[in-house]
Amino acid sequence: MLAEIITIGDELLLGQVINTNSSWIGNRISALGIKVQRITTVGDNREEILKILSESQQRSQFVFISGGLGPTSDDITKPVLCEYFNTTLVFNESVYENALSVLSKRGAVMNELNRNQALVPASAKIVENDIGTAPGLWMVKDNVNFIALPGVPFEMESIINNRIVPAIKEKFKLQFNYHKTVLTTGIGESKLAIQISDWENKLPDSIKLAYLPSPGMVKLRLSGYGHTIIKNIVEKEIIKLEAILGNAIFGYDNDTLETIVGRNLAANHQTLSTAESCTGGNIARMITSVPGSSEYFLGSIIAYSNDIKSEFLEVSKEFIQQYGAVSQQVAESMSKGIMKKFNSDYSIGVTGIAGPSGGTADKPVGTTWIAVSSGHQTISEKFLFGDNRERNIIRSSFAALNMLRKMLISN
Amino acid sequence: MLAEIITIGDELLLGQVINTNSSWIGNRISALGIKVQRITTVGDNREEILKILSESQQRSQFVFISGGLGPTSDDITKPVLCEYFNTTLVFNESVYENALSVLSKRGAVMNELNRNQALVPASAKIVENDIGTAPGLWMVKDNVNFIALPGVPFEMESIINNRIVPAIKEKFKLQFNYHKTVLTTGIGESKLAIQISDWENKLPDSIKLAYLPSPGMVKLRLSGYGHTIIKNIVEKEIIKLEAILGNAIFGYDNDTLETIVGRNLAANHQTLSTAESCTGGNIARMITSVPGSSEYFLGSIIAYSNDIKSEFLEVSKEFIQQYGAVSQQVAESMSKGIMKKFNSDYSIGVTGIAGPSGGTADKPVGTTWIAVSSGHQTISEKFLFGDNRERNIIRSSFAALNMLRKMLISN
Repeated sequence: MLAEIITIGDELLLGQVINTNSSWIGNRISALGIKVQRITTVGDNREEILKILSESQQRSQFVFISGGLGPTSDDITKPVLCEYFNTTLVFNESVYENALSVLSKRGAVMNELNRNQALVPASAKIVENDIGTAPGLWMVKDNVNFIALPGVPFEMESIINNRIVPAIKEKFKLQFNYHKTVLTTGIGESKLAIQISDWENKLPDSIKLAYLPSPGMVKLRLSGYGHTIIKNIVEKEIIKLEAILGNAIFGYDNDTLETIVGRNLAANHQTLSTAESCTGGNIARMITSVPGSSEYFLGSIIAYSNDIKSEFLEVSKEFIQQYGAVSQQVAESMSKGIMKKFNSDYSIGVTGIAGPSGGTADKPVGTTWIAVSSGHQTISEKFLFGDNRERNIIRSSFAALNMLRKMLISN
Repeated sequence: MLAEIITIGDELLLGQVINTNSSWIGNRISALGIKVQRITTVGDNREEILKILSESQQRSQFVFISGGLGPTSDDITKPVLCEYFNTTLVFNESVYENALSVLSKRGAVMNELNRNQALVPASAKIVENDIGTAPGLWMVKDNVNFIALPGVPFEMESIINNRIVPAIKEKFKLQFNYHKTVLTTGIGESKLAIQISDWENKLPDSIKLAYLPSPGMVKLRLSGYGHTIIKNIVEKEIIKLEAILGNAIFGYDNDTLETIVGRNLAANHQTLSTAESCTGGNIARMITSVPGSSEYFLGSIIAYSNDIKSEFLEVSKEFIQQYGAVSQQVAESMSKGIMKKFNSDYSIGVTGIAGPSGGTADKPVGTTWIAVSSGHQTISEKFLFGDNRERNIIRSSFAALNMLRKMLISN
């Protein structure tokens, strides 16, 4: 089974928007055991869309189309699909009802443009959009499946996860495949590769390994194709990997540090607070992105100014003067201070130089001190990240949550 | 002049890496007045690469190729280019010298893999890579320019900026073009489209309009091609648009709400603090993502628990009991409380139900109260966002920063 992905939008050709949809679809569809052989982006242009539809018809059994289904004048995918499939737009009552319900949940009203979302190609099978007004459209020509999806990422993802993937699994006999991703943090990619090279070299041919690095972590994805037995083979290899990497592995597949830390705190009915300087609230933001986090997360003090560090976190002014705001003493005081103030079971304190300015010879940009505390102890560690502000914020937040994770599992 | 972009790599098809190179090239090349008509991604596969080379030859005058030029075994772009151009790989002394010099700057030594970087197609014009070992390759067939670049983003960008763009400007007479993006917030896409439909319908044919919606904002991009006069025509249309949309427009091109708010505060030597509940630190995180934000941002209290709201933000327990934690009274108390505590000139208070649980008939998930304060006044507003936690956090943060922006420009 071969698939290709078409993303439509001038903004993609002009580089005004980074094409994350095609990566997401590629990842999701590959995981089903369907091989994605090509990704194409064309503009909001009738001739270009017609051309790529006809080209992809020759190559693939599945064609995923994203973008141009919205309600405004530059969204031309629907009329062009009608032209290609030799059909017309018709008003669909159930799409209209769904749009009404979605809009009312948002406190919005139906207007003429939103009403147009209910106009769909007559020959299309409608794929319901639970969270947006534009439905997915599944159209078939000469045994090729064209699946058109709205360009808004979370709507597209929801339709694929909840509607398209189950339908494909039901309708088509796909090659068995098994993927498991091992999530590691704290070891750089090349160092990790050396550490696991013996294991990697002995992997059976039926298993493919991919390194997926991103700021703060490296994911190792094992993929097996063929017979159902491959699942056991993958799992056995992961047990060997765990023996090598120990607690550098923080989770699997869709786990995140914030969900793992949260699960652990919730299970023990314990609470957390954070005192953040250079991360500027990013640790709190990560923790509170998890539904139900109010059960264990009490809150934070973001102490961007030194006055607030001393006044609200009880960091001694002498410490700041003597050791500098970015120091072990200040990080530990922040962590202890917030725990005392908010009366939490655990706490985090972070202070660093995110950059691009503020570095010195002694403490270059990227220098970060992180402390984590429980009722019994405070542990602190110094990190030297890079010179990119955004990456320093992300890597500091990861390192802090990872230190907390290790403390939680050792307690 | 038409261009297309080919990116090569299995990791792109599998969605393991997001294709930022094609956006970057698209943006850079469009700005030159060369129209990018298509972007294609294929895998590290000889047949697929040969096919797309031959297809693009039929369509475009410029073909930018990125990826697969590296030294390892899966980098097959060079031999496939040789096959397509009917030439062979030859050792190039100056490429070798350049690689030696680049490696020595990195404190690395030449090995067999790096030495292979000096093997280049005999008929290619070499485009020097100042910061990496793989050179760019410029090859011409039947008046079509194929420009192959390494996949490492900063090397690719450096070669295009420093070598390719000057060479293209010198060799080719390019069409003038002008793009400007108007950033709006607070009005949904379809409502916005209705509001500006008269203006949109009267736009000159030489200008194209695109709607680029994302949670919390809609960008309107105007693009003009042709003569230098088009710049004035675009700017005149934007003046008309400003008259219609007023302060729903918060900026232009690469502006963000957090940079605009920050610039305004910095210019007036004023300070900001935030008290966040449902946004969980995201407003602070957005503000502190801006370099230099420590100049005007003092910090936040993230009050996820009601006890912290009353104890640290002086929100009266009676208010919380009588009106609920998500209420105008609590949002205003939070905003006033943090201003008083942190002694800032401006402040924000946000309380809402991010979801997915916690909603009631009276206050469904997505209900959010936001207050902003200056020394003179506190303004508050109720919002009803949707049922998606992540979007509610983003939209609440946007709405809060937008209320602050309006207060800053009215003061």
